[in-house]
Amino acid sequence: MSSVFRASTRLRSVARLPAARALSTTASLRASEKPYFPDEPTAPSMSGAFPGPKNKAAAAKLDEVFDVRSLNMLTDYYSSVGNYIADLDGNKLLDVYAQIASIPVGYNNPHLKEVAASPEMTSALINRPALGNFPSSDWADILKTGLLRAAPKGLNQVFTAMAGSDANETAYKAAFMYYRQLQRGGPEVEFTEEELLSTMNNQGPGSPQLSILSFKSAFHGRLFGSLSTTRSKAIHKLDIPAFDWPQAPFPQLKYPLEEHVQENAAEEQRCLAEVERLIKEWHNPVAAVMVEPIQSEGGDNHASPAFFQGLRDITKRTKVLFIVDEVQTGVGATGKFWAHDHWNLSSPPDMVTFSKKAQAAGYYFGNPALRPNKPYRQFNTWMGDPARALIFRGIIDEIDRLNLVENTRNTGDYLYGGLSTLAEKYPQHFQNLRGKNQGTFIAWDTPKRDELIAKAKSFGVNIGGSGPSAVRLRPMLVFQKHHADILLEKIEQIIQAL
Amino acid sequence: MSSVFRASTRLRSVARLPAARALSTTASLRASEKPYFPDEPTAPSMSGAFPGPKNKAAAAKLDEVFDVRSLNMLTDYYSSVGNYIADLDGNKLLDVYAQIASIPVGYNNPHLKEVAASPEMTSALINRPALGNFPSSDWADILKTGLLRAAPKGLNQVFTAMAGSDANETAYKAAFMYYRQLQRGGPEVEFTEEELLSTMNNQGPGSPQLSILSFKSAFHGRLFGSLSTTRSKAIHKLDIPAFDWPQAPFPQLKYPLEEHVQENAAEEQRCLAEVERLIKEWHNPVAAVMVEPIQSEGGDNHASPAFFQGLRDITKRTKVLFIVDEVQTGVGATGKFWAHDHWNLSSPPDMVTFSKKAQAAGYYFGNPALRPNKPYRQFNTWMGDPARALIFRGIIDEIDRLNLVENTRNTGDYLYGGLSTLAEKYPQHFQNLRGKNQGTFIAWDTPKRDELIAKAKSFGVNIGGSGPSAVRLRPMLVFQKHHADILLEKIEQIIQAL
Repeated sequence: MSSVFRASTRLRSVARLPAARALSTTASLRASEKPYFPDEPTAPSMSGAFPGPKNKAAAAKLDEVFDVRSLNMLTDYYSSVGNYIADLDGNKLLDVYAQIASIPVGYNNPHLKEVAASPEMTSALINRPALGNFPSSDWADILKTGLLRAAPKGLNQVFTAMAGSDANETAYKAAFMYYRQLQRGGPEVEFTEEELLSTMNNQGPGSPQLSILSFKSAFHGRLFGSLSTTRSKAIHKLDIPAFDWPQAPFPQLKYPLEEHVQENAAEEQRCLAEVERLIKEWHNPVAAVMVEPIQSEGGDNHASPAFFQGLRDITKRTKVLFIVDEVQTGVGATGKFWAHDHWNLSSPPDMVTFSKKAQAAGYYFGNPALRPNKPYRQFNTWMGDPARALIFRGIIDEIDRLNLVENTRNTGDYLYGGLSTLAEKYPQHFQNLRGKNQGTFIAWDTPKRDELIAKAKSFGVNIGGSGPSAVRLRPMLVFQKHHADILLEKIEQIIQAL
Repeated sequence: MSSVFRASTRLRSVARLPAARALSTTASLRASEKPYFPDEPTAPSMSGAFPGPKNKAAAAKLDEVFDVRSLNMLTDYYSSVGNYIADLDGNKLLDVYAQIASIPVGYNNPHLKEVAASPEMTSALINRPALGNFPSSDWADILKTGLLRAAPKGLNQVFTAMAGSDANETAYKAAFMYYRQLQRGGPEVEFTEEELLSTMNNQGPGSPQLSILSFKSAFHGRLFGSLSTTRSKAIHKLDIPAFDWPQAPFPQLKYPLEEHVQENAAEEQRCLAEVERLIKEWHNPVAAVMVEPIQSEGGDNHASPAFFQGLRDITKRTKVLFIVDEVQTGVGATGKFWAHDHWNLSSPPDMVTFSKKAQAAGYYFGNPALRPNKPYRQFNTWMGDPARALIFRGIIDEIDRLNLVENTRNTGDYLYGGLSTLAEKYPQHFQNLRGKNQGTFIAWDTPKRDELIAKAKSFGVNIGGSGPSAVRLRPMLVFQKHHADILLEKIEQIIQAL
């Protein structure tokens, strides 16, 4: 995060801050803790069976035109508030899944409502620009006071995209262009006639057989390039042609970490050695290494800062780029604004991709040579959506105003403590509890995972899974200790009902 | 377009319709023609050089953080209205490029302003859903009164996406899954163990070496799968790995069409024969044929309805899918709502992709078997943006209320007539005038194309090119005959100044 962002502490109206009424109705609310959403329910409320009759009827109607087999619930967003998601039957659930980890500052956040009503937003919605050709006259200002205010240390440029998948793919494209430019001898060296002709036939040397190295269990999206680096589940990949790109093993750490220090360090060294071997030996040369700080769809797999420092060092030594996919980990959830802030790298990643909680998407970079050597090489009609960039700016404002990264760090520590206690009490339901000192980015394995997640809804908790057996917690940044108390109580009830 | 859409004629306030004042100030305005935007300038106005000093200063500021080498102008969207785009220096240009063919109903359209201020929009912006899991309770209604009201005949389902590239790629994914399902013997046949294992290594049979057939000069986007079907220019493709997929020749018609009937028919037959040969012989089996109704980036290359009927018949016969990319041609520009409405096909395309003027994106389909056989095979976090779906609904309302497809058909015929006259007068500047009976989707080749486009701005016209030598006109659907008069006058002036 840039110092500009750290320095800015725009104080706004605190009218939304704690109301005595709200304090008195929340039994578990600590005196020191002010609720961000005074109008939030004080607890989940469920009326009858879940899903209820209105939900079922609406799902049948939607099914006529839109695939509903992945449907969780038809949502009444008008009645959702803060950490609580409402459905058509009047149920209100504590939401610790948050639209697959993508809602940061609460449903119907009052500041975002103001942003939505602003003249800038109206114009961005109804006069959508082709950003590469006709950006609005305030686009530089929107970037500097928004996306770039939150830019990772050392990265002061951005290429904007639409979602995580194309953010990752455009980063890959930048990496391939950079790699070939180095091979050619610099940005001023022209393409050969052979390159110009062969690329029109999808053949080398114009369309070279280069690769991106990713990790086993990784998830980087589902378009053709990103899916070639995704190794989460077969169902994500089956029947789709893929590039012949290498995958390295991701460390499989043993828990509790403090009891497996040597073993885990050796495991990370083994994986690093394999990364280096693949970079040196893979038949399609590796242009970049792509990694998530925490493998978030693949099962909440963590590695230590030493592992990521090792990756940074290997990529420097072998002259390939180091891209960090912060699509799910970014924007505060791990108790730092960017998860890679935990690592103390010797030099910043070459590119950092973002989406989800940012509500906008793209990749950050610092080295000017990562701008391709000619215009229109990295280009498309919209190149992102200024409406979503304005929302991201509003989110950063809220994070700043309410110190939400700090809140997430503190709430996460508190929640992790509570889960540790539950894990001791119910060891058969809690394996490999992980995410200590990682904000609320917490997970554990449990044999009856799918049943637990399904049952949670009828207990008034919306919760998600990752990988084959993990429960993943992805609360918003406005998740507080009194919410953690409710969540811990509910988890115990759910477990007892399994 | 569905009959629901055709039948609906919601009449709204006509307060925005013709003002006597506006009529009296526009010399060329026909008595029968009411201006859609009474507050629009009556002609372009340029103050001094273009780009002006404020534009240059703002570009330098933006360049610090964002690549500006493709910049046309920093735009003052607040001062842009209807068909006129404004810049920071007070210039107002008649815009017949319209954000690379993506603005349909005018800058600062009053109805879209109302949509932007609606409670539905506010919620869509600040409570962005994961549409596959937690759609809003009114999502079915938004689809049925919006995207699906405009659905091509025979296609009643939609998969929503973010932009043209991922709309096309998700359509390709659906095609690959469908193709393998047919090979397997139906949706109930389970994946083999070998498929499940091999796909995790990006290898067959789980990740099969299938292909999409596209055409020479085609443009379908710039992500890895879509770029593998794009064959427009080397600069779009260089250094990016591509799939080994086939390209067929696209007919190169001779103009004027009426003087080359036999020759052009033979050319189309040659291309069709090559399509059929490639489907039968290409080493990576073809799952689908992808085609634009008019190759829009690749040089405005047209083909006859007979050619597309032939493609439909070949794909039926060879059991591959027929996908029509209406990203640039769709939503009224050709004088039909969908360009493929011109063709009278024996059966609808299997999928039709859309974006740009729709402001939302995705693909339509009709065959329920194109829904993959299991959930989560075609899925991502956001799966589109309801905010943009609401804008599309507002656009359809406007098209409907103002009969904008008919306007575009009539204005296009009028404009084509005027350009024919210019072409006779200046044959050295007009070759292969094309787009007759295709609304305002008109182009011609000219030897000094790049100079013409650059010079046009200083004459107050914002205009684009396509392919190596074409001027492409892409006015909005609110472009009227009095705008055509101004455009024709300006084009003559520009040509005389070359």
